[in-house]
Amino acid sequence: MPDPSHPQRGLPVAPSRGRLTPVPAGDVVLEDGFWKARQDLNASTVLPHALDWIDRLGWTDAFRRAAAGEDARPRQGKLFTDADVYKTAEALAWEASRTPEGPAGERLADLGALIRSAQEPDGYLNTWFGHRHAAEKYTNLSHGFELYCYGHLIQAGVARLRGGVEDDLTAAVLAAADHAVATFGDTDDTRIDGHPEVEAALVELARATGRERYLDLAGKFLARRGHDTLEHHAIGPEYYLDDRPLRDVDVLRGHAVRALYLTAGAVDHAVETGDDALVDHLVGQWDHTIATRTYLHGGMGSRHLGESFGNDYELPTERAYAETCGAIAGVMAAWRFTLATGEPRFADYAERALFNMVATALHPSGQRFLYVNPLQVRHPLPEPGDDEAPFRKDTPRAPWFWVSCCPTNLARLFASFSGYVATTDAGGLQLHQLTASRIATDVAGQRVVLRVHTSYPWDGTVEIEVVEADGRDWELALRVPAWARSARIEVAGDVRAVVPGMARARRNWRPGDRLRLTLDVEPRLTVPDPRVDAVRGTVAVERGPLVYCAEVPGGVAEARHTLPDPRPKLTEVPAGVAGLDPGAVGIATTVRTTVETTVPAWPYGPEAPPASAGDEELTLVPLYLWGLRGPSTMRVFLPVEGTQG
Amino acid sequence: MPDPSHPQRGLPVAPSRGRLTPVPAGDVVLEDGFWKARQDLNASTVLPHALDWIDRLGWTDAFRRAAAGEDARPRQGKLFTDADVYKTAEALAWEASRTPEGPAGERLADLGALIRSAQEPDGYLNTWFGHRHAAEKYTNLSHGFELYCYGHLIQAGVARLRGGVEDDLTAAVLAAADHAVATFGDTDDTRIDGHPEVEAALVELARATGRERYLDLAGKFLARRGHDTLEHHAIGPEYYLDDRPLRDVDVLRGHAVRALYLTAGAVDHAVETGDDALVDHLVGQWDHTIATRTYLHGGMGSRHLGESFGNDYELPTERAYAETCGAIAGVMAAWRFTLATGEPRFADYAERALFNMVATALHPSGQRFLYVNPLQVRHPLPEPGDDEAPFRKDTPRAPWFWVSCCPTNLARLFASFSGYVATTDAGGLQLHQLTASRIATDVAGQRVVLRVHTSYPWDGTVEIEVVEADGRDWELALRVPAWARSARIEVAGDVRAVVPGMARARRNWRPGDRLRLTLDVEPRLTVPDPRVDAVRGTVAVERGPLVYCAEVPGGVAEARHTLPDPRPKLTEVPAGVAGLDPGAVGIATTVRTTVETTVPAWPYGPEAPPASAGDEELTLVPLYLWGLRGPSTMRVFLPVEGTQG
Repeated sequence: MPDPSHPQRGLPVAPSRGRLTPVPAGDVVLEDGFWKARQDLNASTVLPHALDWIDRLGWTDAFRRAAAGEDARPRQGKLFTDADVYKTAEALAWEASRTPEGPAGERLADLGALIRSAQEPDGYLNTWFGHRHAAEKYTNLSHGFELYCYGHLIQAGVARLRGGVEDDLTAAVLAAADHAVATFGDTDDTRIDGHPEVEAALVELARATGRERYLDLAGKFLARRGHDTLEHHAIGPEYYLDDRPLRDVDVLRGHAVRALYLTAGAVDHAVETGDDALVDHLVGQWDHTIATRTYLHGGMGSRHLGESFGNDYELPTERAYAETCGAIAGVMAAWRFTLATGEPRFADYAERALFNMVATALHPSGQRFLYVNPLQVRHPLPEPGDDEAPFRKDTPRAPWFWVSCCPTNLARLFASFSGYVATTDAGGLQLHQLTASRIATDVAGQRVVLRVHTSYPWDGTVEIEVVEADGRDWELALRVPAWARSARIEVAGDVRAVVPGMARARRNWRPGDRLRLTLDVEPRLTVPDPRVDAVRGTVAVERGPLVYCAEVPGGVAEARHTLPDPRPKLTEVPAGVAGLDPGAVGIATTVRTTVETTVPAWPYGPEAPPASAGDEELTLVPLYLWGLRGPSTMRVFLPVEGTQG
Repeated sequence: MPDPSHPQRGLPVAPSRGRLTPVPAGDVVLEDGFWKARQDLNASTVLPHALDWIDRLGWTDAFRRAAAGEDARPRQGKLFTDADVYKTAEALAWEASRTPEGPAGERLADLGALIRSAQEPDGYLNTWFGHRHAAEKYTNLSHGFELYCYGHLIQAGVARLRGGVEDDLTAAVLAAADHAVATFGDTDDTRIDGHPEVEAALVELARATGRERYLDLAGKFLARRGHDTLEHHAIGPEYYLDDRPLRDVDVLRGHAVRALYLTAGAVDHAVETGDDALVDHLVGQWDHTIATRTYLHGGMGSRHLGESFGNDYELPTERAYAETCGAIAGVMAAWRFTLATGEPRFADYAERALFNMVATALHPSGQRFLYVNPLQVRHPLPEPGDDEAPFRKDTPRAPWFWVSCCPTNLARLFASFSGYVATTDAGGLQLHQLTASRIATDVAGQRVVLRVHTSYPWDGTVEIEVVEADGRDWELALRVPAWARSARIEVAGDVRAVVPGMARARRNWRPGDRLRLTLDVEPRLTVPDPRVDAVRGTVAVERGPLVYCAEVPGGVAEARHTLPDPRPKLTEVPAGVAGLDPGAVGIATTVRTTVETTVPAWPYGPEAPPASAGDEELTLVPLYLWGLRGPSTMRVFLPVEGTQG
């Protein structure tokens, strides 16, 4: 049973230094609203669904077979399916901390025992390379994913340890981590894994156990990367971030998820070792990436080939890669930057990625997920069947995938979501995500209980009610999002305008006090930087933190939706799409639907081909509701009429 | 020594049926001009360069090692390097036919003997899977490329046979083809190769030898494809064109080069077996592909991932794949359609691909080549060194590649170029490519000698002089390109306007008669179909068959070149770029160079960021001259000012 008094209880990240201290997930209880609905859906449906799929594809049975001395390789999926068993375990661990009376703890006990049963006496643990295939251990670090799998195993163990539990899973984790230290620590084996992930995990395990050796190994892996030592051939070293040392690179590049996990691990290590120069450098990489290589919906990764970042301003919409895991890794990295620096821009990114990538990836059934997140769909693929785990990553939401990193990544994020909401420092409390919640934690040496009342993102009012406080002086701060054009806060009848950043109110807070933040969530037009060639002549529509899209269920690929008026009237209406959010707001506007009446033999000529056009009212819907009405065409960026050359 | 009286002498494709009969390459001698310069460069430099590289990477030595019973696998490059040895042999065979006194024949004799030496007694031939690795023969047809390599081997042999020579190479070819028939013909082994190529080769070998069994095997391979029998996993059957039978698909899709080679083989087989319905179906696929999936420069293949076609109108410029081999395969397929149907639109495509893809891929040194052909470069990669065979395919022109299909493919095309110029039918002669040449062939039962005088593409006048003819009545036809807006022909003082298509003049042609075609090659603006989202708000500039680009050597990625005037003045000037073509024409125009003065923290906002802009004269250059002045930024499609939303 999780121990509610554990000092790191429910902390997804627990740095020993930094500007801000995270409020543990256990101190933040989500209440009615957008994220509560998803966290509950995760517990009720996503987790059982994941457990079902890792069983049915043989991913758990691989552990049983390994333990029994059978050939554990046969399975559907690739050689690193262990990682998804571990991410499921991690999600169960967070969920067991959140709902100790729920079924997650028992499910995790079974899964942990299974995992532990496949561990070899020396601590080595991998169902593909271990036991009957022991001769191949660590023979293919570029593409074998053994240390990547350890990373996810360790993160599951850290989640369990931070619930105050020691069990089969945590025993397996410590033994595996020690095996990694014995193999790659102060030895002649100075290799690294092709897929970063173990670095952050090792730092976190050091934080959770106090054992320096894990921190040291993380530092070694970080320092070894960037010297082109991984075998690669056709794909090149940039894919693995092994082309140049971290400190020599000023922007994220290569495989997006790998780059973001590496960033998270590097921040963790730099924070623990007091390497502020490296933190600053990593912040610079991040800022450059946000400024030039990030999609409006928060997605990262412009290229399907190599699942990688593109060049600056290379942000194609129809073939955006923008992997769901990239947004999750981005939220994780952003949280580390938030804690290290105290700057609000990182939580701005997290909000954008959460509402427009993470929420989009999750089907309201809790049983389907997006892997790739396009910003334009002209030729919808068929929806995979309920029993399909497709190879393709660019399908509509699927029940599972051949490589199924995204669903289990979503599960662990939703289960630990409350841990990304608030922080404290010596002077007070900071609210980073504007979500309805009850926060009961220690602030400036006293116990404080707050309730956050809001129906954000639908409404722009966020009211913080002080339920418990002893009247001492402290500062209550909350993030005013970067998109806010006019905002004000009101405390005890005192109203003042605030600008994006942290709005702060210092006083002797007493029970019954209220702070009200009012944001203007009127629909707004967003113009892309002209350097983003892929969206020349277009605008997007946003409302609050949400990106909207023009979706046409059953749409014809050849129909184009444009804005006849570059400054169109935008009218709020009910969104009219089934989902978890009955209060969802749509935005009605006049669009011009143009259908070319011919397909010319050659699509380039002295003038555009003839077309018929008609204006109609269309209700733009939040991007996260896209694709719930069957195959559809969709656009985030709407061309403005008259922009055709 | 090649036999100049061989009935199929110098014919790249020799169908036994069809609307038009190709004039053999040996009957067409290129004279001064654009293509002659490249054909000569190919002979003098490209071929020796290719022979050097296949030696230095161990690709020829693999044959020696295989013959000697050593392990032939070690080499730089992938497991199908045999194919590039064979394409080099094919290029030498065409070159030996073209210049019998030149060195190609002797070089080929050596290479043919080497190839033959590695053949096993039963006819099997492959340096990766044969001999010491014989247990693995045909165990990985999806990705082993054994039949693909046979295809290129057979095409080399066909080229040699059509030179009237039988030697080691042709002996090896017949033995290998018979081994394929024995293995995959009327047997229980009904598998196919992952990479189509052998189909066209087998039909051609049947044509060259009269042996039906090769045609039959080609038919079997064609019929077997499309039933999802290839092992694939992560990549899916569409990549291999194995998802649906050829007759069930109405557009080219999947891996672009594979799709185009398959098309060539399917046309060949359908023509030989009289399957006119299939020819019609293939024409429909082609037309659809040209209408919606082809770049302005004739490139095909929109996606780097899977080197594949995209959806209709999915034609990104900066990340265009547009492999050089795709254009070459496209020219080969288009020629087959030309012969089968007599319609001029296929040669229109070939002209576009030749001038804007094939010519672009070849560096004027003859020692560097493009693999990928973008239509926009904002972040130029460094130029590979003289000793580099890069893994990356999107580099500037490189001496060679890790997978080096494109250089040898260029070599075989240039060496056989004269075979793609003209045809005859019962009533006369047709000129498909407007190139300076001397054509001496049989037309309507008589010997006709023509000279084509032109400095096309720089000048729009093409004059055909009858040098020899006996005064009988026949029709001289020549292609008026699809881009021609006003054109006229003049015969014996009779001038008439002609429209795109075949311009025909029937008369009793006598020595000294002349036909003059005059095309308007004034620079023109080209507007993309609005459905091509990637180029919204832009126009391109073309002149005759040439696509132009705005190139800025040493350009700054952040600078944008736009047209301040949507109908700009376009002035012809010398192109001013070193190359093979001293008469090259550039096009001066006023462009606006805009540089944003900030990099905003987030590239989306209520308005575009501030920028400085200045107008300047810039000389647009033909696309094929792009990249010869060191690293540069480049755009084919120029945004028109005022098209930013």
